[in-house]
Amino acid sequence: MNAYATLEQKFARIACLDEAAAMLGWDASAMMPEGGAEARGEQLATLAGLSHEFLSAPEIGEALALAEPETDWQTANVALMREAHIRATALPRDLVEASVRAGRACESIWRQARPESDFAAVKDSLAEVVALTRESANILGERLGLAPYDALMSQYQRGISAADATAIFARYEAFLKDALPRAEELQAGRQHEELPPGPYPEVVQEALARKLAAAAGLKFSAARLDRSAHPFCGGTPTDIRITTRYDEADFASALMGVLHETGHALYEQNLPAAFRRQPVGAAAGMAMHESQSLIIEMQAVRSDAFLNHLAPLLTETFGKTITLGGLKNRLRRVQRSFIRVEADEMTYPAHVLLRFRLEQALLSGDLAVGDLPGAWNDGLHNLLGITPPDDRQGCLQDIHWYDGAIGYFPSYTLGAMAAAQLMAAARKALPTLDDALARGDFSGLSGWLAQHVHGLGSSRGYNEILTAATGEALNPAHFEAHLSARYLG
Amino acid sequence: MNAYATLEQKFARIACLDEAAAMLGWDASAMMPEGGAEARGEQLATLAGLSHEFLSAPEIGEALALAEPETDWQTANVALMREAHIRATALPRDLVEASVRAGRACESIWRQARPESDFAAVKDSLAEVVALTRESANILGERLGLAPYDALMSQYQRGISAADATAIFARYEAFLKDALPRAEELQAGRQHEELPPGPYPEVVQEALARKLAAAAGLKFSAARLDRSAHPFCGGTPTDIRITTRYDEADFASALMGVLHETGHALYEQNLPAAFRRQPVGAAAGMAMHESQSLIIEMQAVRSDAFLNHLAPLLTETFGKTITLGGLKNRLRRVQRSFIRVEADEMTYPAHVLLRFRLEQALLSGDLAVGDLPGAWNDGLHNLLGITPPDDRQGCLQDIHWYDGAIGYFPSYTLGAMAAAQLMAAARKALPTLDDALARGDFSGLSGWLAQHVHGLGSSRGYNEILTAATGEALNPAHFEAHLSARYLG
Repeated sequence: MNAYATLEQKFARIACLDEAAAMLGWDASAMMPEGGAEARGEQLATLAGLSHEFLSAPEIGEALALAEPETDWQTANVALMREAHIRATALPRDLVEASVRAGRACESIWRQARPESDFAAVKDSLAEVVALTRESANILGERLGLAPYDALMSQYQRGISAADATAIFARYEAFLKDALPRAEELQAGRQHEELPPGPYPEVVQEALARKLAAAAGLKFSAARLDRSAHPFCGGTPTDIRITTRYDEADFASALMGVLHETGHALYEQNLPAAFRRQPVGAAAGMAMHESQSLIIEMQAVRSDAFLNHLAPLLTETFGKTITLGGLKNRLRRVQRSFIRVEADEMTYPAHVLLRFRLEQALLSGDLAVGDLPGAWNDGLHNLLGITPPDDRQGCLQDIHWYDGAIGYFPSYTLGAMAAAQLMAAARKALPTLDDALARGDFSGLSGWLAQHVHGLGSSRGYNEILTAATGEALNPAHFEAHLSARYLG
Repeated sequence: MNAYATLEQKFARIACLDEAAAMLGWDASAMMPEGGAEARGEQLATLAGLSHEFLSAPEIGEALALAEPETDWQTANVALMREAHIRATALPRDLVEASVRAGRACESIWRQARPESDFAAVKDSLAEVVALTRESANILGERLGLAPYDALMSQYQRGISAADATAIFARYEAFLKDALPRAEELQAGRQHEELPPGPYPEVVQEALARKLAAAAGLKFSAARLDRSAHPFCGGTPTDIRITTRYDEADFASALMGVLHETGHALYEQNLPAAFRRQPVGAAAGMAMHESQSLIIEMQAVRSDAFLNHLAPLLTETFGKTITLGGLKNRLRRVQRSFIRVEADEMTYPAHVLLRFRLEQALLSGDLAVGDLPGAWNDGLHNLLGITPPDDRQGCLQDIHWYDGAIGYFPSYTLGAMAAAQLMAAARKALPTLDDALARGDFSGLSGWLAQHVHGLGSSRGYNEILTAATGEALNPAHFEAHLSARYLG
């Protein structure tokens, strides 16, 4: 067997272990009784340990030195294998273990500190996490030829740099300064239509969610929909598991949640089968993944066209009069708020931008951990004109950082912006796209995404995929145009 | 770390992989969409391959040579580790691979041949499976100091030999010759009370099954009940997964199924926590496991005492009059039949005895595979006085043998007999046991089983556990007394 084939075989075995872990992770969230938690932790740790052991094995390094890929995809695959091997071997064992310990301890303290709004309690622990992450980022950056923060960011999304994101986000900040007050003013001037009160029976919500997920392209012969406390998309490409939670007073949260996860699921279901279990056959990154959930949930489902289809469907399904106006009012409201996960699509990027700037400053040392609460509050005030009343609603709100994850935040907004850009390109390529959505027909859109995004796997990076699909690298003008049309029209 | 501690650590890691496989196996039967089947096969093969690789590693052999266990439990643990290591390493790789291939091919042909009652189609393939199993049994027997058939049988249940079983089964044959016609005669002379026709709504059946499983001692904080095509008990001791299937025309099949699996589940839940993930901490074998399902389902639940409690409970639950007579008629009927899995508790051992004799004769070569159909039909006729009309209802009915499993069949009846013996001992130790069952209270029984069976794990073999719990090794007189009281009274 030649070196390249050996690598494919070794990575397929690693992927099998990761798949087993993915299924057990889904089970832990959706099925497992509480008594199973401790044993599940051991099972997952064993699988993760073996996966890391195989990935960092010297034989992988030897095969990488000898591998002669024969196609572009194989070349991309080897590059991704090399990066994964470097990431798995670059850091001294002591540093990895100290980081894991520090992250676990800090997250545990944070769980206590957040409800009590007690940043002082977690400050020292966070400082240790930041210091260790800095040390890792420096080593990884050197080995990968990247700036330290880029070395962190690229583990979540390859193919776009912090410098690119900085410029794009600055432009968005300027847009928001003007757009947000205008959107608020227009909103205040419109009649406020309420949706009828519940109950919206859970069983009816679920049946509708399944129907619309299937309409969006989800193949239930290779997927399940279940319940969990925190909705997510898990599983594996041929066995996708999406979850949601239901609120009988409000049909919209579960329905939008399912359609969001359906976007993630479509990406996984349409990955290139010829490179199953290979790095190049996986999704291109977290930002690109988020673009696929948001193009379904935000771009397609909340479009005028689809809402025109949805309102009578909801009326028929629930036996209550759901007006288009009520639906728009529920699904498209702008609102300055403190909590990122509750933010609307126009203000959400401000939350991300704040974190993106702060985490770079923490990593470089320009911002001391002790100064984080003040910097957070000032930053949010500059962006949205509001100041959190306490740290619980400020710098303590997200688990990220406290669990050691730095470099992830930009993915959310890079995803939202890519979704708008891809939707604009899809509308050009498919002139009848909105007519189809107005009939509840997603097939044109999902076919276009399968061809231009899903089927590419990780053969290209973020900006390369966008360029091939839309003719240009990320251009925030599309997102701004989308928001302007929806909120300023 | 000393050699014994090293072994414990290595076996715990192997057990973690096996636990992961157990959960994924449950998922495949109870949850997985069809699209996931191929990937799941790969995941399970990867886990099984690693588990075998770790178990057969030379370092295990080295540590076994050095290990100095300090307690009886540690000594038993090392003995079980040694046996597992020998089983994993004794057979040449070629033989293992040939056996797996032959078993898969034969099972696949059998799946076609059974519905067509075409033994000729599968004969040659079965002959190859038998020949390869014989070769393995000879090697394993030599390495383990056992007769070849005992080497196979003991992989399912340690601590009782084929010679023991032969004598016990022969005695049962004599008992049955007399008891069966008498039971049939008494049954024919009784009034035949029918249960009211369904529907018995699935959701009501499930709620009742949960209630009774919990009453029998199942902790749902560490267990789930779901649906699958073939009911089973899977999962791990702190996360048990039992399944059933529902028939709205007949509440009894699902209810008895759940209570049977509950018996298995109680065993797992009460295994010794101090030896979690160690061979000595696992259940003592398949026969002992079956004794625990049958002591709940057959001994306790179908007792006069509990049926007196169950009949009014069923009446209340389903809103239909369920009489004690109707219930007894449904749950306690003797019937000569061709199909083992449908047999009643009195004739079931005849089916097992037939297979036990035939599989030994096949393994030794005394019976040629081509002569199996005739030997089967003659054997069943000698035991039950009936002759299968075709091989589909004869020697083609069970998957065992065709999938390579020889030596498993005796476990069913050794389990049924142990259940009767344990129940007799529990009744002596707990004079109010039947009063408690008549109130639906299983706590005395399940506490006694936890102490005398479950909590012992594999620290002792089959007959040792029975001797400690009941004062004697397996004595079929208890099973005969049970059947006499129930069917000849």
